[in-house]
Amino acid sequence: MKSELLRKDLESKSIIKVCGAFDAMSAKLVEYHGFDAIWAGSFAISATHAVPDASILTMTEFFDAASNMAETCKIPIIADCDTGYGGPSNVSHLVKKYENAGIAAICIEDKTFPKQNSLLENGQNDLISEKDFVAKIIAAKEAKQDQNFMVIARIEALISGAGMDEALKRATAYENAGADAILIHSKKKTPDEVFEFADSWKGNSPVVVIPTTYDTVTLDDLISHKIKMVIHANQTLRAAHASMSRILKQMINSDSLSKVKEEISSMEEIFELQEMYNIKDKEKELEKELKKLGYIN
Amino acid sequence: MKSELLRKDLESKSIIKVCGAFDAMSAKLVEYHGFDAIWAGSFAISATHAVPDASILTMTEFFDAASNMAETCKIPIIADCDTGYGGPSNVSHLVKKYENAGIAAICIEDKTFPKQNSLLENGQNDLISEKDFVAKIIAAKEAKQDQNFMVIARIEALISGAGMDEALKRATAYENAGADAILIHSKKKTPDEVFEFADSWKGNSPVVVIPTTYDTVTLDDLISHKIKMVIHANQTLRAAHASMSRILKQMINSDSLSKVKEEISSMEEIFELQEMYNIKDKEKELEKELKKLGYIN
Amino acid sequence: MKSELLRKDLESKSIIKVCGAFDAMSAKLVEYHGFDAIWAGSFAISATHAVPDASILTMTEFFDAASNMAETCKIPIIADCDTGYGGPSNVSHLVKKYENAGIAAICIEDKTFPKQNSLLENGQNDLISEKDFVAKIIAAKEAKQDQNFMVIARIEALISGAGMDEALKRATAYENAGADAILIHSKKKTPDEVFEFADSWKGNSPVVVIPTTYDTVTLDDLISHKIKMVIHANQTLRAAHASMSRILKQMINSDSLSKVKEEISSMEEIFELQEMYNIKDKEKELEKELKKLGYIN
Amino acid sequence: MKSELLRKDLESKSIIKVCGAFDAMSAKLVEYHGFDAIWAGSFAISATHAVPDASILTMTEFFDAASNMAETCKIPIIADCDTGYGGPSNVSHLVKKYENAGIAAICIEDKTFPKQNSLLENGQNDLISEKDFVAKIIAAKEAKQDQNFMVIARIEALISGAGMDEALKRATAYENAGADAILIHSKKKTPDEVFEFADSWKGNSPVVVIPTTYDTVTLDDLISHKIKMVIHANQTLRAAHASMSRILKQMINSDSLSKVKEEISSMEEIFELQEMYNIKDKEKELEKELKKLGYIN
Repeated sequence: MKSELLRKDLESKSIIKVCGAFDAMSAKLVEYHGFDAIWAGSFAISATHAVPDASILTMTEFFDAASNMAETCKIPIIADCDTGYGGPSNVSHLVKKYENAGIAAICIEDKTFPKQNSLLENGQNDLISEKDFVAKIIAAKEAKQDQNFMVIARIEALISGAGMDEALKRATAYENAGADAILIHSKKKTPDEVFEFADSWKGNSPVVVIPTTYDTVTLDDLISHKIKMVIHANQTLRAAHASMSRILKQMINSDSLSKVKEEISSMEEIFELQEMYNIKDKEKELEKELKKLGYIN
Repeated sequence: MKSELLRKDLESKSIIKVCGAFDAMSAKLVEYHGFDAIWAGSFAISATHAVPDASILTMTEFFDAASNMAETCKIPIIADCDTGYGGPSNVSHLVKKYENAGIAAICIEDKTFPKQNSLLENGQNDLISEKDFVAKIIAAKEAKQDQNFMVIARIEALISGAGMDEALKRATAYENAGADAILIHSKKKTPDEVFEFADSWKGNSPVVVIPTTYDTVTLDDLISHKIKMVIHANQTLRAAHASMSRILKQMINSDSLSKVKEEISSMEEIFELQEMYNIKDKEKELEKELKKLGYIN
Repeated sequence: MKSELLRKDLESKSIIKVCGAFDAMSAKLVEYHGFDAIWAGSFAISATHAVPDASILTMTEFFDAASNMAETCKIPIIADCDTGYGGPSNVSHLVKKYENAGIAAICIEDKTFPKQNSLLENGQNDLISEKDFVAKIIAAKEAKQDQNFMVIARIEALISGAGMDEALKRATAYENAGADAILIHSKKKTPDEVFEFADSWKGNSPVVVIPTTYDTVTLDDLISHKIKMVIHANQTLRAAHASMSRILKQMINSDSLSKVKEEISSMEEIFELQEMYNIKDKEKELEKELKKLGYIN
Repeated sequence: MKSELLRKDLESKSIIKVCGAFDAMSAKLVEYHGFDAIWAGSFAISATHAVPDASILTMTEFFDAASNMAETCKIPIIADCDTGYGGPSNVSHLVKKYENAGIAAICIEDKTFPKQNSLLENGQNDLISEKDFVAKIIAAKEAKQDQNFMVIARIEALISGAGMDEALKRATAYENAGADAILIHSKKKTPDEVFEFADSWKGNSPVVVIPTTYDTVTLDDLISHKIKMVIHANQTLRAAHASMSRILKQMINSDSLSKVKEEISSMEEIFELQEMYNIKDKEKELEKELKKLGYIN
């Protein structure tokens, strides 16, 4: 079980390194390069569908992306479930669905539905009441069958401007309600407020961060502040976007593919990733079996 | 209508430049950089699902990818439909479905189902009989409502080793049956056999090529051999794969995101692509309307 | 265009008869029996998925059901879109999606998200503010490309207990904002409050009703109160549920299928509905074409 | 595990009674009335999509239907997978997918792809070679992780006219290749050929039948011929079709719903099936929890 794997990693490792993916290929690359888990992020998944990160895609589409990853990868998938796509009943429904699909953890955040991306300038970042979010956490906790399945509560108090005291108060409330980890989100250029939160946090639940804006922070810094999980949420997407933009510009301006300088993977590397050779191997095994049974000489 | 646009481009331009995409984001980037049309290729779409390019994904999944592109882009989508996912009834069903979704053209190939990628070493490339493929083309032609919708017949005779005469014989048969264009596929390192085909071709249907292996060929060469459409089928995918591989290697080995050297797009560039600002603009328009109606002061 | 058909029917007929369906087969039966349009109702679609009618299914699943109906039927589909699945951005997104799929009209209601079925005893029926619902209607109106596409505003004021004055005030506000029709919902055993609404209504938009609870009302009564559309929302579902319950009870208690008394359609009737014979007809046409081309003697 | 349940039932019961369903609601009704397992049949699922039972729907759509049933029901789901949707690679892929979704068994048949319904007059019923079908069974057997997951091999030799000897020869070959049960299909009006098959069968695998055409056969007859599983594949669908046809005819010809005589289930019965009251119960539990935590007085 991948949920058990995630729990064990949280206990045994000083910090867990998680990287974002948006489809099965990017997830498999994250796994191949040695990360501990995969973040199925709604920003990146929305971007690949070319729709705003504003609760436009439905749970069904986010679920399909995360579920494809879970089918393909051996490491745990952590699914970013935005606000939970509704109230406690929706959260209850989604926990069953995600757990059944072999996803190891979900993360829900305490903003109003529909939400907007937390890093958008002038974005809408209203919080729902503590009580209403606690209700969602209780619903999630009651719905899960596998006790290792993790419910991560993401606190948007620092994003919304509600302040540190509110963030800490909510963290305690969410832990009491059954959250298995606390994700404290920040859009500051430095990790100061995240460190302040982590240092002030008296609970037992592990603290999780996404250092998109405070990208100079080091692993040692995070560990020294007892942060247990770091998520590189969107760099794979942004690298893919950048390289495709570069090669497209070159291709449209060039009279021959061979003059394009952007480095691309070989067809064979892609075949490898998609297990094309595996099919050929299985064909050979099948031939052996058919020989044994006398169908082929 | 995008199908009309594709027809007009084929008439007015010396050659049409088409580039492959695998999701709505890559399709939008292809459009943004000035290509004439988008190739929704089954190799690339299979790869992003991390499954072999061997008829493993179903029409439903390929359709969803192409349909997402059509919802997002203004330029025509050409959907790679492999072998047509079955017999004439399946082709008839798919033509209705793709045409309804605003896709401009489909391409079907004359290999047996399930197929394997044409560039795979020792891949299986058996041809179905000319008669059976003609039956699929007739079914496609009868099913389409919009006469501009294009049915591209892809000939695998050079891939399978059946030879030039077979390729030309089939091209004529497919045109007679109602194909709107002929895609001649080749896995040679040089364009020689593709040029031989184009020079020998006496039909009226435009010739289409995918120079993945003979990538030194120039646009002028293609034009001088009366080739009307060139498809760069998989370079966007391979660039994305390469850049994600590079950045993941750096991220896992680095103690801080800021030390990662791979160039990534900014959050703002992604917001732009996914029309995040459009939502903010619409919110402002909505406010104006609500003011007019007296709901806001 | 089916949206044009719906508009014309609304003008030319004294009342439009609409019947509920939940999948393509039930929709086709509704069409076959002579109704003017099909109601793709969220209660029935939720029931066939065996989940509560409480915003548990996502837009994606409701859309798939309505879209399947539109692919299959020639008469207009009216899609029940509950509360619009979020705010104005979600409504804008859904209108584009539904219109592209050839659906003729959508209906959204002024309850809070997530909603509960209006006929559920002690169900939650809180209204959102008039302003917030007006914002959704404006978003819908701006998003539609086909001016015949209809946006039906469903008023839940009588269900929620907000009263007749509120219902009428909202109807006017919704019409001013761009609603093309007003659905006044009621859970009373008699049509009195619906008639009072219709008689008091001074707007130009047609009035729509769903007489599930006041089922003794006659067409003439509705017409005499200038009601333009009546929706039999869930009777097909409830008949299917009842007949399947009866036959299952008989089958489990019988030692032979032939002793089961519940009337069932023949295999041939189902083949007819699913156009199985159409495939055989097309095979014959195909043979003719192949003969013409010399492939068959 | 439902697959274990199915295995145990096969051992302990004289015969297993399976009934067909096509969506989650019909599946739940089958469960409620006491059947041992649910047949997710491709004829019925195709019919509800209003497309021919001729490999027109893809694996994705059949899978979604079966998967919805598995999410909803506690009894085993047996998924009718037609010809396996391609070759051994496709069968391998589908077994992983279905097993992951909690489906207990799949059934594949030895006809060519695309197939046509076996009961269609003049339908196409060509068999693939024994070797090619054996290859699919081997692929299925290798792909399964849960050894209780069942692969049912459906023999179409009696349907296609290949005869009894061929049927028995294939049954032995399929069992040797790893099939867990043998479904012998027949379109005769009497069970004679099915009984002849069962009596001649020397293998250990349980024999399964679908008495659609020979519906006078009794359970005792089947048991006396050592048949271990009987599937009532399509009666729920045909009852639903018949009752909806009746009520639609009455509704279109009546001036009031109350005059319609066709019996329908109450709204409350549907609410019960879709667990609407469960949501209300959970709301109450949630309130209790919120009280405990001090959020409500």
